[in-house]
Amino acid sequence: MIVIGIDPGIAETGFGVLAVAGSRLTAIEHGAIATAPAERPEQRLAHINTEVAGLLERHAPDAVALEDLYVGRNPRTILSVGQARGAVLTACGVAGVEVHGYAPAEIKSAVCGFGRADKGQMLRMVSAILGLDPPPETSHAADALAAAVCHAQMARTRRLRVELTR
Amino acid sequence: MIVIGIDPGIAETGFGVLAVAGSRLTAIEHGAIATAPAERPEQRLAHINTEVAGLLERHAPDAVALEDLYVGRNPRTILSVGQARGAVLTACGVAGVEVHGYAPAEIKSAVCGFGRADKGQMLRMVSAILGLDPPPETSHAADALAAAVCHAQMARTRRLRVELTR
Repeated sequence: MIVIGIDPGIAETGFGVLAVAGSRLTAIEHGAIATAPAERPEQRLAHINTEVAGLLERHAPDAVALEDLYVGRNPRTILSVGQARGAVLTACGVAGVEVHGYAPAEIKSAVCGFGRADKGQMLRMVSAILGLDPPPETSHAADALAAAVCHAQMARTRRLRVELTR
Repeated sequence: MIVIGIDPGIAETGFGVLAVAGSRLTAIEHGAIATAPAERPEQRLAHINTEVAGLLERHAPDAVALEDLYVGRNPRTILSVGQARGAVLTACGVAGVEVHGYAPAEIKSAVCGFGRADKGQMLRMVSAILGLDPPPETSHAADALAAAVCHAQMARTRRLRVELTR
């Protein structure tokens, strides 16, 4: 199974592509899609959309995983992240790839074992789980990989549960 | 000049296509893009994106006009509208069409002459300005036409100002 985690943002959208074989997770590719502040918002969103469409075409993932937005944030931030999510979700919908959203605490639990891990702990655990040395260069790529790890674990748990109840 | 006004929303995205010749405004087409609540968000956003891309291809507008989102609203609403805006902006960016945003009060002023007009006044004025009888069926289409009327007036004012200062 291939899972792509994405962390949408207008300035930088992180992504991480995972191959999942049983409990074995391998990071195939990760990085960030950066856009130029001098460009118009519609150009920046089109750039994100096109790059994500390219990732989906190259890797043909079984699913895309995103972190659900914590809506207690600044309304301007929510609007900006919402628009970037719209560009990403559009690419997924056009490609026919299902998107799964996970709460921040679910992702932290899946990666670190508890829901209140900080940024540094998350980065170290993601790097350790995936054997990434050096660790991802941007926190957006690390967050994207974390969402993908979370989805891989959740999907495995769901599958095991189905098998046990057969 | 052709201007398309768009009022993005996940359930219904209103649109209105205006032909602008001097001070003469003609509504070429208006309506709403509806999506099914049973569909996944990424499918609904892809549907909006595809339909808007089709409008842009058919009418080759000089500009797209949107109402800026009033960010004092419910954070969940902002996120949802933000994602729909992302799908619309992506289509514009991919088509290379510039998007212009106007504050709600600017649009009300342009259409009704004052910034605090209510929904009913806006609908009647948009219908009167564009000679639409019956008026637009959905408030989303009316809001989209209002944004397009606002852009047409603003563009005309800017052009006259440039000519006067020559």
